[in-house]
Amino acid sequence: MTQLHGVVPPVCTPLTPERELDVPSLERLAAFLVDAGVHGLFVTGSTGEVAYLTDETRYRALDVVAGVAAGQVPVLAGIIDTTTTRVVEHAKAAKAAGADALVATAPFYAPTDPVEFPGHFRAIRAAVDLPLVAYDIPVSVGHKLPADVVLELAGDGTFAALKDSSGDLDGLRAVLDSTDDLVCFSGSETLADLGLFIGAHGLVPGIGNVDPHGYLRLYDAARRGDWAEAKTEQARLRRLFEIIHVGDGRMGRYSSAMGAFKEGLVARGVITGGTTSAPMIPLNDTERAAVRRHLAEAGLL
Amino acid sequence: MTQLHGVVPPVCTPLTPERELDVPSLERLAAFLVDAGVHGLFVTGSTGEVAYLTDETRYRALDVVAGVAAGQVPVLAGIIDTTTTRVVEHAKAAKAAGADALVATAPFYAPTDPVEFPGHFRAIRAAVDLPLVAYDIPVSVGHKLPADVVLELAGDGTFAALKDSSGDLDGLRAVLDSTDDLVCFSGSETLADLGLFIGAHGLVPGIGNVDPHGYLRLYDAARRGDWAEAKTEQARLRRLFEIIHVGDGRMGRYSSAMGAFKEGLVARGVITGGTTSAPMIPLNDTERAAVRRHLAEAGLL
Amino acid sequence: MTQLHGVVPPVCTPLTPERELDVPSLERLAAFLVDAGVHGLFVTGSTGEVAYLTDETRYRALDVVAGVAAGQVPVLAGIIDTTTTRVVEHAKAAKAAGADALVATAPFYAPTDPVEFPGHFRAIRAAVDLPLVAYDIPVSVGHKLPADVVLELAGDGTFAALKDSSGDLDGLRAVLDSTDDLVCFSGSETLADLGLFIGAHGLVPGIGNVDPHGYLRLYDAARRGDWAEAKTEQARLRRLFEIIHVGDGRMGRYSSAMGAFKEGLVARGVITGGTTSAPMIPLNDTERAAVRRHLAEAGLL
Amino acid sequence: MTQLHGVVPPVCTPLTPERELDVPSLERLAAFLVDAGVHGLFVTGSTGEVAYLTDETRYRALDVVAGVAAGQVPVLAGIIDTTTTRVVEHAKAAKAAGADALVATAPFYAPTDPVEFPGHFRAIRAAVDLPLVAYDIPVSVGHKLPADVVLELAGDGTFAALKDSSGDLDGLRAVLDSTDDLVCFSGSETLADLGLFIGAHGLVPGIGNVDPHGYLRLYDAARRGDWAEAKTEQARLRRLFEIIHVGDGRMGRYSSAMGAFKEGLVARGVITGGTTSAPMIPLNDTERAAVRRHLAEAGLL
Repeated sequence: MTQLHGVVPPVCTPLTPERELDVPSLERLAAFLVDAGVHGLFVTGSTGEVAYLTDETRYRALDVVAGVAAGQVPVLAGIIDTTTTRVVEHAKAAKAAGADALVATAPFYAPTDPVEFPGHFRAIRAAVDLPLVAYDIPVSVGHKLPADVVLELAGDGTFAALKDSSGDLDGLRAVLDSTDDLVCFSGSETLADLGLFIGAHGLVPGIGNVDPHGYLRLYDAARRGDWAEAKTEQARLRRLFEIIHVGDGRMGRYSSAMGAFKEGLVARGVITGGTTSAPMIPLNDTERAAVRRHLAEAGLL
Repeated sequence: MTQLHGVVPPVCTPLTPERELDVPSLERLAAFLVDAGVHGLFVTGSTGEVAYLTDETRYRALDVVAGVAAGQVPVLAGIIDTTTTRVVEHAKAAKAAGADALVATAPFYAPTDPVEFPGHFRAIRAAVDLPLVAYDIPVSVGHKLPADVVLELAGDGTFAALKDSSGDLDGLRAVLDSTDDLVCFSGSETLADLGLFIGAHGLVPGIGNVDPHGYLRLYDAARRGDWAEAKTEQARLRRLFEIIHVGDGRMGRYSSAMGAFKEGLVARGVITGGTTSAPMIPLNDTERAAVRRHLAEAGLL
Repeated sequence: MTQLHGVVPPVCTPLTPERELDVPSLERLAAFLVDAGVHGLFVTGSTGEVAYLTDETRYRALDVVAGVAAGQVPVLAGIIDTTTTRVVEHAKAAKAAGADALVATAPFYAPTDPVEFPGHFRAIRAAVDLPLVAYDIPVSVGHKLPADVVLELAGDGTFAALKDSSGDLDGLRAVLDSTDDLVCFSGSETLADLGLFIGAHGLVPGIGNVDPHGYLRLYDAARRGDWAEAKTEQARLRRLFEIIHVGDGRMGRYSSAMGAFKEGLVARGVITGGTTSAPMIPLNDTERAAVRRHLAEAGLL
Repeated sequence: MTQLHGVVPPVCTPLTPERELDVPSLERLAAFLVDAGVHGLFVTGSTGEVAYLTDETRYRALDVVAGVAAGQVPVLAGIIDTTTTRVVEHAKAAKAAGADALVATAPFYAPTDPVEFPGHFRAIRAAVDLPLVAYDIPVSVGHKLPADVVLELAGDGTFAALKDSSGDLDGLRAVLDSTDDLVCFSGSETLADLGLFIGAHGLVPGIGNVDPHGYLRLYDAARRGDWAEAKTEQARLRRLFEIIHVGDGRMGRYSSAMGAFKEGLVARGVITGGTTSAPMIPLNDTERAAVRRHLAEAGLL
């Protein structure tokens, strides 16, 4: 697993106006990211609208990205579903579609106790022989993945890595201080420098779709211990990240963020259209113009 | 929709020791409930372990139950998934497998705002021409279905019914007081009498798998205004419901409850084995004996 | 404690425009409630703005109400503060000011564990020899008072009664089913009939300040088993309770509710002015007019 | 307010075995901290058990510490109570007892909306002419102090400083990025280096009672940009902070933490006894020995 590290954007899933997968756009996006120098691609993550995609679209998207990556960088696949048996099905399909590693959450919807998490993850790991990444995302799953469960499953080889989208830097620090067996990624766009400061090995920033070069500069600065430069770059990216609020008051925050990321990619000429999945509310002209204004201010247009 | 009312148990999904669907057991369970006099059958609900079943098992279970029901009582199918497109796929498959009505939640996992719920439910209703039942289950979905959304979608014909598993009797009362266009079911096992007292039209009690006759007596007493009798029956059923705690301290509450319901059905000779889905922890001998003790005390053995 | 039962309104605390205690108004309010036939008076509760009053004002209000009650009905005093030592000080002062019983919550602000609750309540009971009422109000305290703690402290004589403002009828039912040693009050304005239906011995409705006769009719109907009449009265009171929303969107819900209760009392000629404590936002003319419209519709003007 | 910055420990409140204020111990503790070089003393904060102290004990403790400080370092006083009028009383008493600045939270217990917070804080600031520090401690207050409220009240001169005990570094960063008018303190013991990294001007670490020199080294390293040294010191302090868990499983976390801090001060010869306030559960011999073991490992004995 030496190759899992660095900037690994959770790749957006471009859609046609009819909400079908826009394959040429996805190919251009994957190529844009690889050309920028990212260290991996995370397909069918939250930013990839995984919870909105049919199984068919999920694996088609993964297949497309794996084709572009062509072994240059590892391709991680989110295998997001409610419980073990359903996740195992996704794991098998993702391996068949070209995934190099799998990213799974604790069970959700079904009320599940932490005492049942090890059985869940071990069954996934046993079913498909690919590195397994623990995905800690309480905002979606409804509970935090406890540090002791993460450490137990890192210790026995179930987990190769952790993607922490919990916002709990204290908890992430506890994990980092307790093991050398786990590659840790921060999922934060706005505290990425702090994640690296405390020892995280990589970043999975949603807005890294729009500005991969920024996160690569931040990552490189951190790697050489230039924290002043890392902070400066983070400050610029924090301002850019404000685009997620363009739809505030008229839609949910996820509609606004996904719409903004995609519109940003349209503005940069990477993908063709900004369509998001149902039931997300699309951005209107005013909101799209606000996205472009932010990008211009960030020097991206 | 005049037929939607009364006691509609969320049917358990019996599994073989290998965790395959146990078709003969499911047939016997469906027949047991129909013979008891229930007014409908709710397949692939939470108590049916829907979140643990592959799509294939979901529709096979639905097909089996629809075959037993054979038009005697309506069969409701839970079409439980994260967002619109995925739920619409389930809706189509459920109709093909014989469902008479569909039961859908608001989106989950994907952070979604109430302003986006109407679009979600209207798209489902538009895609498949079957009565749509709103499923309000905050413990699984992560947020309550707001009364104003329910009323808006009852008013325009999107929702035919509401299954309330929120535990919020004040909210349910607000809905009942505001519309005559919606059939309302209480999902509570222990406050079923209160649900009927405030005007609910039916019950969806998980432990109604084990003791359908008890809930039918409760329902009938309430219908004729015999609240003393309804309360007495409810008190007996509350004591029986304590079986959900047999595994407390050793497993999650869902493992314990599902294991107890199934063991109760084994004890009553309805299904063959008490296997539950991964990653649920199975009951041990002590816990199974406790289930049987509770059933004996409730006069069910 | 045989006298603790029935309708026990949490008495509002009328203030002058300078936010001093309006003693004549408080005397008229207490007399209005006693004349209506209430079974007790609860002073310095949440509806009495206890958390907004200086100690001096708290005990002055209690002294005034005890003077009006003059032994005709028991006077309960809220002794609301963060932890044991502070609450004990209030307990002593409240006894001196004429309280017949004391109402205390679990500790708040200071993070406290249920294992520490028994010591808290026992110390209060030991310090002052008056019946102690457990006050379960999670919205203010931050956690629910667990049923097992309530039952343990009812069993050893620490608690004489429980005021349940948790909204958790299932939990209240568990307590009622488990002991005959505890007088239970429901703090709900809108599910008061359900509280009595499951066996509660009394009601503490905030809007009972404005319409004590309504809650007395509801209580009497329930006592004689006339549930249809209880429900009808509850329905009328639910509509009246909508006055708590007159300030929605312009202030917090507590500002709106307290302002509405007080304006209702002004409209009925009981108190002189509707001033509420800082930092609550006062109702404006439109909102006050809306309160009066609701009262007229409820037949109270 | 140029003097508000740096390491400002929230001073513990030593008690005699009879739970009276132990004045000589408090004098020694204040002197120990001043001699160590701290930049201020925060009296009657959460670590000072403010929510457990009578008013009399609060002001006596403040008076004692102000006497020791004698103008060498500023003394901040927590004026912690439920709502405006009560807090204003504390503000006046704290000024009289020698406070140089006041630390206040948003209202608690009484459900209050953010729209009502500005009125609350402005009334406090208007009543007593001392610098006012906003105290953001959601775990106690029940809600976060929103960044826009903090910024509004910093902008109009109501707030001189912010003590952030929310754990939300993203929110703190948003405040720091938006104003130069506010002195910001981090209340975290374990992410103190991150707080300083993002620009906070000082620290209020509870365990800084036990090891002020460690936090001073951390602070000085951060001030000169030596982040490697800051991290190393933080790592040592994180291990020391594990003493807060010595009572886990037998008491609440606050009982355990307060008991451990005080036992640490006893072990270091600063105070006489480790008594904590009711209803906290005292440490037993095993737990006290564990505290000393941690201190020895941290090189403090």
